[in-house]
Amino acid sequence: MAAPNPTVPRGFPRRFLTYEKLEDLFRRIQWIEMELSALLTSAGINIGICSLLFSLYSILRKQPSNRNVYFGRKLAQMRISLAWETSEDVILAIGGLDAIVFIRTLVFSIRIFSIAAIVCTAIVLPLNYYGQEMQHKLIPSESLEVFTTQNVKQGSRWLWAHCLALYIISCSACILLYFENKNIIRKRLAYIKGSAQDLSQFAVLVRGIPWSAEESYSTTLKNYFTKYYPSSYLSHQMVYHHGKIEKLMRSVREMYDVLYHDSLPSCNSCGFPGGGRGGGRSNVFNILVNEPDVTEKGKMELEDFRAREKECPAAFVFFKTRFAAACAAKALQSSNPMLWVTHQAPEPRDVYWRNLAIPYTQFWLRRTGTFLATAAFLVFFIAPVTLVQSLANLTQLQQTFPFLNGLLKKKYVNQLVTGYLPSVILVLFFYTVPPLMILFSTIEGSISRSGRKRGACYKVLFFTIWNVFFVNIASGTVLNKLTVFSQPKDLPLQLASGAVPAAVKFFMTYVLTSGWTSLACEVVQLYPLLCNFIYKFILRKDHGPFDGQYTFPYHSEVPRVLLFGLLGLNFAILAPLILPLLLVYFCLAYLVYRNQLLNVYITEYDSGGKYWPMVQLCTIFSLVLAQIMAIGVFVLKKSTLCLGFTIPLTICTLLFNEYCRRRFLPVFKNIAAEVLIDLDQQDEQSGRIESIHRRLQSAYCQFEWLAYGGSRMKSKYLSDDDDTLGQSQELKPESEFSQEISVDESVHRSWPVNPNAEVESKPSK
Amino acid sequence: MAAPNPTVPRGFPRRFLTYEKLEDLFRRIQWIEMELSALLTSAGINIGICSLLFSLYSILRKQPSNRNVYFGRKLAQMRISLAWETSEDVILAIGGLDAIVFIRTLVFSIRIFSIAAIVCTAIVLPLNYYGQEMQHKLIPSESLEVFTTQNVKQGSRWLWAHCLALYIISCSACILLYFENKNIIRKRLAYIKGSAQDLSQFAVLVRGIPWSAEESYSTTLKNYFTKYYPSSYLSHQMVYHHGKIEKLMRSVREMYDVLYHDSLPSCNSCGFPGGGRGGGRSNVFNILVNEPDVTEKGKMELEDFRAREKECPAAFVFFKTRFAAACAAKALQSSNPMLWVTHQAPEPRDVYWRNLAIPYTQFWLRRTGTFLATAAFLVFFIAPVTLVQSLANLTQLQQTFPFLNGLLKKKYVNQLVTGYLPSVILVLFFYTVPPLMILFSTIEGSISRSGRKRGACYKVLFFTIWNVFFVNIASGTVLNKLTVFSQPKDLPLQLASGAVPAAVKFFMTYVLTSGWTSLACEVVQLYPLLCNFIYKFILRKDHGPFDGQYTFPYHSEVPRVLLFGLLGLNFAILAPLILPLLLVYFCLAYLVYRNQLLNVYITEYDSGGKYWPMVQLCTIFSLVLAQIMAIGVFVLKKSTLCLGFTIPLTICTLLFNEYCRRRFLPVFKNIAAEVLIDLDQQDEQSGRIESIHRRLQSAYCQFEWLAYGGSRMKSKYLSDDDDTLGQSQELKPESEFSQEISVDESVHRSWPVNPNAEVESKPSK
Repeated sequence: MAAPNPTVPRGFPRRFLTYEKLEDLFRRIQWIEMELSALLTSAGINIGICSLLFSLYSILRKQPSNRNVYFGRKLAQMRISLAWETSEDVILAIGGLDAIVFIRTLVFSIRIFSIAAIVCTAIVLPLNYYGQEMQHKLIPSESLEVFTTQNVKQGSRWLWAHCLALYIISCSACILLYFENKNIIRKRLAYIKGSAQDLSQFAVLVRGIPWSAEESYSTTLKNYFTKYYPSSYLSHQMVYHHGKIEKLMRSVREMYDVLYHDSLPSCNSCGFPGGGRGGGRSNVFNILVNEPDVTEKGKMELEDFRAREKECPAAFVFFKTRFAAACAAKALQSSNPMLWVTHQAPEPRDVYWRNLAIPYTQFWLRRTGTFLATAAFLVFFIAPVTLVQSLANLTQLQQTFPFLNGLLKKKYVNQLVTGYLPSVILVLFFYTVPPLMILFSTIEGSISRSGRKRGACYKVLFFTIWNVFFVNIASGTVLNKLTVFSQPKDLPLQLASGAVPAAVKFFMTYVLTSGWTSLACEVVQLYPLLCNFIYKFILRKDHGPFDGQYTFPYHSEVPRVLLFGLLGLNFAILAPLILPLLLVYFCLAYLVYRNQLLNVYITEYDSGGKYWPMVQLCTIFSLVLAQIMAIGVFVLKKSTLCLGFTIPLTICTLLFNEYCRRRFLPVFKNIAAEVLIDLDQQDEQSGRIESIHRRLQSAYCQFEWLAYGGSRMKSKYLSDDDDTLGQSQELKPESEFSQEISVDESVHRSWPVNPNAEVESKPSK
Repeated sequence: MAAPNPTVPRGFPRRFLTYEKLEDLFRRIQWIEMELSALLTSAGINIGICSLLFSLYSILRKQPSNRNVYFGRKLAQMRISLAWETSEDVILAIGGLDAIVFIRTLVFSIRIFSIAAIVCTAIVLPLNYYGQEMQHKLIPSESLEVFTTQNVKQGSRWLWAHCLALYIISCSACILLYFENKNIIRKRLAYIKGSAQDLSQFAVLVRGIPWSAEESYSTTLKNYFTKYYPSSYLSHQMVYHHGKIEKLMRSVREMYDVLYHDSLPSCNSCGFPGGGRGGGRSNVFNILVNEPDVTEKGKMELEDFRAREKECPAAFVFFKTRFAAACAAKALQSSNPMLWVTHQAPEPRDVYWRNLAIPYTQFWLRRTGTFLATAAFLVFFIAPVTLVQSLANLTQLQQTFPFLNGLLKKKYVNQLVTGYLPSVILVLFFYTVPPLMILFSTIEGSISRSGRKRGACYKVLFFTIWNVFFVNIASGTVLNKLTVFSQPKDLPLQLASGAVPAAVKFFMTYVLTSGWTSLACEVVQLYPLLCNFIYKFILRKDHGPFDGQYTFPYHSEVPRVLLFGLLGLNFAILAPLILPLLLVYFCLAYLVYRNQLLNVYITEYDSGGKYWPMVQLCTIFSLVLAQIMAIGVFVLKKSTLCLGFTIPLTICTLLFNEYCRRRFLPVFKNIAAEVLIDLDQQDEQSGRIESIHRRLQSAYCQFEWLAYGGSRMKSKYLSDDDDTLGQSQELKPESEFSQEISVDESVHRSWPVNPNAEVESKPSK
């Protein structure tokens, strides 16, 4: 086969090696017929691995030493069965609205794929199976192609059944999506109406304060807002360069520690000295400054620290009412859009302080830079994917490693290699993606931690859909197409057999490996478990780095779930055998993720359900893509009737999307003026407004460690990277594991976020 | 040539006719070598036509009967030389900011293409011409390919010169763009700051007022805004269903005419009865109602007219300050985003009343509908374009019409057909596009006339770039590619000769026909001239339908100019011969459009320069596309050095775009809060605010004819379609043509729009 190719035209220049090479490659890459039994083997292996991991989990989680791995939330009494029993309100209370959105996505997937599985098993599968007049083998040794649309005759009258199934799936998906939308919107409104304590609604983040030679940023800002917002401006709080401040504070603190040891009083006001602040300069440093014994050096340093170089051209500006803050946040302040850039402030816990110091003029650079970097990463990642493709090929393996020939000819090894190996390699490669995308989002300059994670989530989603779905389909298509031109006589057959049904085999094993097994891995928490083991039993330390400090990795899990939805919707008609596998995955995912949300991960911040628009858009995208693929099949099978019926369905789906985009999605971007004004009026009437204004002064705390005494010098911003090494030690509640925390208490604790309540409940060490 | 093809593989099924047909077609379609002389012939013809038309213009415009065609603006003393002499301030005064943006686009194009022409004629053209070691013919009979990059040897070291030229063009384009941006931003700010009289800044258009069984829309609206905007809400004005009102009013008016003949007094308040309106129900109908002699029937009808069925769920809400209006316009009002939808109100003259009656809930349907319709139109328009492509082909013509063989073999006919015919047909097809896109924009539901035109402009731009540029290039590429696979030995040659240089020939003639000649047609105003002739000399009427009632067709002219910019930037390096043609076009366009803006078109409304973002984006798109095409050439010519240098240039161009997008474009979307608050404060201090509030009551006038007496029953909304049949007769100033209007007066008249001043200056007939 690799011998000099007689079909290459003689006139073809030899230096154009690519053509020859391609010819050779295409000949070698042949989509071998995978049998059902190979798939079953793969399923068996995965079920084995899953069972093993789940058993491991049920043993390991009973070990007291692993409690910090499996019960980061320290809700000891909840067992895995609880993941099924707990109501959504509890999940809302514990995990926030984002958790609800994630769980509802799973529920939606279970529902739609139950319907799809019933419809497709009842209607489509038998039609595919008996599509051609042929001698059927025993079912386990039947080729997988027999179960796909590939087996339906051209011009078959039974294709209307496929069309009907597509209609049922699309319509039920839209209906379910509509009700999920309504449900989540209702929850979000309740969330906002219940968030009267959310001080971030009064705050606006201002960046790009213009530099002036005469005044400090703080003064410039105060003058500006008192001029333009005289009736609603309350006070402001500058953002400081952390590097300089930190260095200075460290020396001051060390000196102070030397002088006073551990006698520093606990301080509830975690505020930082901001000019302005409504006039009164309440300064945490007054504690130091007012102490008569502070050394001269300290005083000088404090003077220096007050100097304007420490200020960033960014600040939080507080307004008297929520509506005034919302107006200021939405308005274009200056005729130069690079100055006085306003933005609704994130919740205090959600602020990503490190990025606030970045000059706003850099943002366009960072945006384009990360966009290009992401795009480049997206494109160049194809290399390993195609490597996987070629590895999936037995013939290829045999040629590359001739010494394996004997081994590879054995039936089970054969099935293992074709059915399992490619997706395992792909999955391993994919583990590097989410951290990298988080890094990209950080560089991009997100101002909030939830925004950063959401940005990463979008990037991972694009990446996944492109590199798992499209590249796998496209590489098959391209291969087939190029072969077409060298052997034009096979054209119709090649196109009819198509790349898509061939890709199904890959995706079915992908569901088994990336889906099922990764869920089992998620439950067992292999990496934290390992780290915990090393810390406890090898390094002999009390606290490992994984003591319940993870927030839920939405940026890797949401795209994963959405990808499986995409696969399911796209292959429901073409290859219905994928549906049971997916249904099992989603049910398992429902249980596993509920357990993880309840027991393992902590909720530090919440984006208020802003992951939902992504779910909505991705589902519509999947539906439309599925319809387009069905159109392709109908064209190939020459069924103009079905073609004519499918095009209106696509148009209706797009119309539905436009409706949802107008009816529901704006609620995720903005809070309605009605709601804000109502909340303002309630506060006004109840007299709460004064206390809110007072509490605003200390809500945002750039250097959180200032608020708590002790010698730990880790500042808040050092622990921003919750996805790498968890929270700062100060934030961790030190309650013992065995201590039972009632659900109600945890409700109060984590949602809605009440930073001051948090601060006040912190013990002074 | 059409004989049975021996290269079609034997195994290839005969029923697949397409393949055979294609094979045959590709063989026949051969890019014949067009000579420079053919191009020169084409240029000669066009110069002839242009000269003819310009002479015609200089004769015709002196005829008194054509004055209403050529001097719609009635600035009689301005000659065409004046188009060169008048300053930009005058154009700003006469044509508004949109005219300035358009003229600046032309100036920018002239500048960049002067630079490009100099650079490319000096550096690139000689290198292309002497690129291959070959025997050169006399220049006029030289093939056009000789002047393109096609003539450069593979791996030539002189390609760095092309790269350098690309750098010079890209950098100078970016620098010029930056300064144009600054210039236009400055003008726009001056425009906004000078628009203290613009009452639309106080108004918000509210749509989607919820229906209630108990209250009228007007009461619901009043309750809502007094509840949520108690301090800033001033009054409101409902929008009425025009059909019902019109019918009713017609009968009332006719009755009134019968009773009082022409004695109806002129009425300055053109307002319509709105509930609310700050309490006082100043009603134009009071004139009628208070007349004691109005018949009983009229009274009953007026009662009926007040009934709520006539109200649309839309209204203009007036606020006390500009900033409050801007806040209300930007905010999401309700948790249901389909209710209480707010939008900055267009200027009174700019309102497209007909669309305000559309329920907001329909908008998503209309949007998607027109999107799909536009997309379908875009795709199916390819048919005539490919027809043009095949007509361009001499061989094809000879085969289709064998009887023409003798004629077609003549040299001049040959040159005429290949060089001229294809683009003429295309141009004729294209004349149908702008009116259709205006229709699409109307159906889409634009609330302002300028918005409708801008929407159409975007659609025409996409359409033009897709159907002129991409389809012409792609059809060439596809043809070549498919030929490649049937004759693989020609692969490298085919790709190197490429489709792009082949397309150049087409585009050069396109510049001549669509560019030069259409400018001449624009000056002569063929269609209005004809209509005018028919009206005056055949129907013997005093006033034709074209008495200076056209507004400038930005939606067809902006895309045209941008397309030529795209062509120029993309082919500057590949085929520098196109540059002189374009430069002539842009200089001519500069003169012609200035003349037209000064003398012919009227300015009814102004979008405030919102066409500029389109120009900016399209220019960057053209630059990036040109760089990508250059990269393609460098790859083909195997110049890795140039390739390596061009990629950073593309990245820098994208970075520059992102910078402009952040630095300049927001100013076109929103008016800065600073500016609004400053204006508010000035009004407050000078005490003008009361008079503004008073004038607001009558600023928006749905049924403008109510304001003027007379028996003409044309209502304002009937003449919304200024692009079809011009303005209502009442709006036309009746001053005589010979009357000289000083520039100052026209400044006052047309910019900034001061509707009340307009209304007051209207004579009562």
